[in-house]
Amino acid sequence: MLGARGGWQALRRCASLPRAQRAVRLRVREALGAREPAGEVKVQGWVRSVRSQKEVLFLHINDGSSLENLQVVADPSLENRDLTFGSAVEVQGKLVKSPHRKQNMEVKAETIHVVGPCDTWSFPLKTKERHPLEYVRQFPHLRCRNNTLGSLLRIRSEATAAIHSFFQDNGYVHIHTPIITSNDCEGAGELFQIEMSNEARESAEKTHFFNVPAFLTVSGQLHLEVMAGAFTHVFTFGPTFRAENSQSRRHLAEFYMVEAELSFTESLQDIMQVMEDLFKTATNTVLSKCPRDVELFHKYIAPAQKDRLEQMLKNKFVTISYNEAVEILKQASQTFTFKPEWGCDLQTEHEKYLVKHCGEIPVFVINYPYNLKPFYMRDNEDGPRHTVAAVDLLVPGIGELYGGSLREERLPFLESRLQRLGLTDAYQWYLDLRKFGSVPHGGFGMGFERYLQCILGVDNIRDVIPFPRFSHSCLL
Amino acid sequence: MLGARGGWQALRRCASLPRAQRAVRLRVREALGAREPAGEVKVQGWVRSVRSQKEVLFLHINDGSSLENLQVVADPSLENRDLTFGSAVEVQGKLVKSPHRKQNMEVKAETIHVVGPCDTWSFPLKTKERHPLEYVRQFPHLRCRNNTLGSLLRIRSEATAAIHSFFQDNGYVHIHTPIITSNDCEGAGELFQIEMSNEARESAEKTHFFNVPAFLTVSGQLHLEVMAGAFTHVFTFGPTFRAENSQSRRHLAEFYMVEAELSFTESLQDIMQVMEDLFKTATNTVLSKCPRDVELFHKYIAPAQKDRLEQMLKNKFVTISYNEAVEILKQASQTFTFKPEWGCDLQTEHEKYLVKHCGEIPVFVINYPYNLKPFYMRDNEDGPRHTVAAVDLLVPGIGELYGGSLREERLPFLESRLQRLGLTDAYQWYLDLRKFGSVPHGGFGMGFERYLQCILGVDNIRDVIPFPRFSHSCLL
Repeated sequence: MLGARGGWQALRRCASLPRAQRAVRLRVREALGAREPAGEVKVQGWVRSVRSQKEVLFLHINDGSSLENLQVVADPSLENRDLTFGSAVEVQGKLVKSPHRKQNMEVKAETIHVVGPCDTWSFPLKTKERHPLEYVRQFPHLRCRNNTLGSLLRIRSEATAAIHSFFQDNGYVHIHTPIITSNDCEGAGELFQIEMSNEARESAEKTHFFNVPAFLTVSGQLHLEVMAGAFTHVFTFGPTFRAENSQSRRHLAEFYMVEAELSFTESLQDIMQVMEDLFKTATNTVLSKCPRDVELFHKYIAPAQKDRLEQMLKNKFVTISYNEAVEILKQASQTFTFKPEWGCDLQTEHEKYLVKHCGEIPVFVINYPYNLKPFYMRDNEDGPRHTVAAVDLLVPGIGELYGGSLREERLPFLESRLQRLGLTDAYQWYLDLRKFGSVPHGGFGMGFERYLQCILGVDNIRDVIPFPRFSHSCLL
Repeated sequence: MLGARGGWQALRRCASLPRAQRAVRLRVREALGAREPAGEVKVQGWVRSVRSQKEVLFLHINDGSSLENLQVVADPSLENRDLTFGSAVEVQGKLVKSPHRKQNMEVKAETIHVVGPCDTWSFPLKTKERHPLEYVRQFPHLRCRNNTLGSLLRIRSEATAAIHSFFQDNGYVHIHTPIITSNDCEGAGELFQIEMSNEARESAEKTHFFNVPAFLTVSGQLHLEVMAGAFTHVFTFGPTFRAENSQSRRHLAEFYMVEAELSFTESLQDIMQVMEDLFKTATNTVLSKCPRDVELFHKYIAPAQKDRLEQMLKNKFVTISYNEAVEILKQASQTFTFKPEWGCDLQTEHEKYLVKHCGEIPVFVINYPYNLKPFYMRDNEDGPRHTVAAVDLLVPGIGELYGGSLREERLPFLESRLQRLGLTDAYQWYLDLRKFGSVPHGGFGMGFERYLQCILGVDNIRDVIPFPRFSHSCLL
């Protein structure tokens, strides 16, 4: 039998061998994309529909390699009781040109073997039904067999690869920053604490496994900054955690973050350029790699998202300062629940207004008030502790997608700020980095799930992760 | 200024533009690899050595893009007090052919700007000293500026990319399996438990954030198996955790695991073929992408590893059954601390002997006793509960690198086994997967840090991770 590698290689062989000696195993995607007919192929997958006519039996088979199913035509004598929606089958036959306009190729079956039957009565997914996302969210262990979730997972996989490629093509070194850490980064959010399990604690005769309290990371930034003292371009792409008590459609306890850090920056624009490039390059890659999967979302889940995304990709992102943003908000005819005021955080309603005001394309807001932002952001020196070189990217329909800043690389500035905050002891190692060849640097973070929502227009963030939470304790 | 993308593009431009209009920013790796001289380039990095002669000043600059430094030659008048080992500099000048055999190109400096000085007295790394790994492990925030760790991190980054590429090229879908889970997979090891931080717990008025006890994942396998019911090829590559109390040189509390799951398998060989292909393909990619970095390890850290690795790559991996393994051990002239006995686990001393017996190349040991292995492994039906289709890969110098198995896809077998173990309720969802189009499938896991040790011969596993633990509480 052909192994995994064999599968893809088979396709090439297929095209040149009109009649293979033995059955060549093809994935659905390969069969659909084949240029020429081939004799003796084997296709495996799950049945998406069975239609039995007097003269002919039609099957649609899917194996997760594409949204499209492969049509199998067979003699009605090949039908059997177990050949139902949801069953797993292995079909042998010939790959032939399809007479139907909708598909390129189909398989004329010689044998159909039901590998695993499906108890259709208790199977929560039904043939030809378009189940709403809320419905399939109840079945975390089965929902990947639904079209929408299948597409989502292929898109998520391609987006992950596209992000890695972007950084690799640009010479960034990938760093696995720690998941368990004693560092809360910036007080960015509620922390999860790590303990030994109860039994282990009793036998270990100590309270903390690591002898100090340990937490799940909220950001890899500070660890990346360490690396930015040796490599001019580094990135990380891993899970981050917030113990926020709200179970909103916008927040997850566990989510993925893309973070990058660049050394020898000259201004905040250096960071913003990479943020914009990353968004556009990765998105264009995803759109070209799985157009049908993305189309499903733009057609059935979020019909307005296609145009919105095109606008984001076509236009240069806009930049406004925080000062300008506050002025725009103050002059708005709209009444806000939170009155816009210099020195206060921008609220969701403000962000929405700004994005709309700028023409429904992504907007960089830069140079935030000093006191709003964490200690590591670089003082702009436009007044005594007035603003820092911070940037947020606001995106139509999503709000904040990216956050970034230049980092304070100057030892005296950082020392006095940490001293005022009473953090000097905790961040001695961070001060150290400024003593030994410190360079201007900066970086950014992007929530990966938000990014997927941005492409697909999916409203609930729980629908862009492989396993939804709070719904099925065994698979939590 | 050129952004990140500009850097790589500049190189190409460089070759065709003998005299650029303005300084082109080049990374060290780009400068060293340039085919032709170029006027007005800018190079940034950290000084690795300063050598002042009467007529000429020599600098060696490194920016993390390669192990090799770029030589800068300058007029002695450009020297200044801050230009020391460890300082960060920006050099402008001309890229010229080097008269020295050892390097291709060098920079003739016109200006040298010290961006960040270095307090060499308190800097723990010293110029031209080859610091032992144990020494630099004490400085987790600075050790990346050491040659050995720099090479390690580039290799780790390339190995990560190579593993992702292997799976992507073979049509696998990448899945982010959950890090926080209520599922302990198989009782594979001690678990870390997740709690809210103390303050949060008081205000939340509940004991568990997720209402049930939650843990850090020990393996993504069961979640991958869910996905293998919709995609024929899936993989994950993320952090996994064990709260093992031993601080040995072989174990980490947090480590990375590569796991894959394949559907429609015909035998254990399908899985073993992918394991062998992954090892060889990824390793060859790493060797070709960063030969100098790997060479450093094979020259100075583990001189025997080069030959050993070549043997592993050149030879087909050997397969023996557990039965055969026990027979070989029983007939050995060597006396073991643990007497080899059918039904007992293979100990490190046994694994070493088997690898040596088979010619110091990787050995697959297959078909282990039923009672030694977790419930999900497939019964070989060679006797009543006699052996299961499990496989471990033993590797010279490392021991177990991979573990894998066929999974029990047959509902009745799984039902009765879970019942005997009293696990039916906990694994109802897992049984469900066998009711709806269940297919023969299997998979494997490979410890990523062990894999790196395998390539590099590094003895202590703490030296192949970006941040060593237990050494610096702020960076834990």
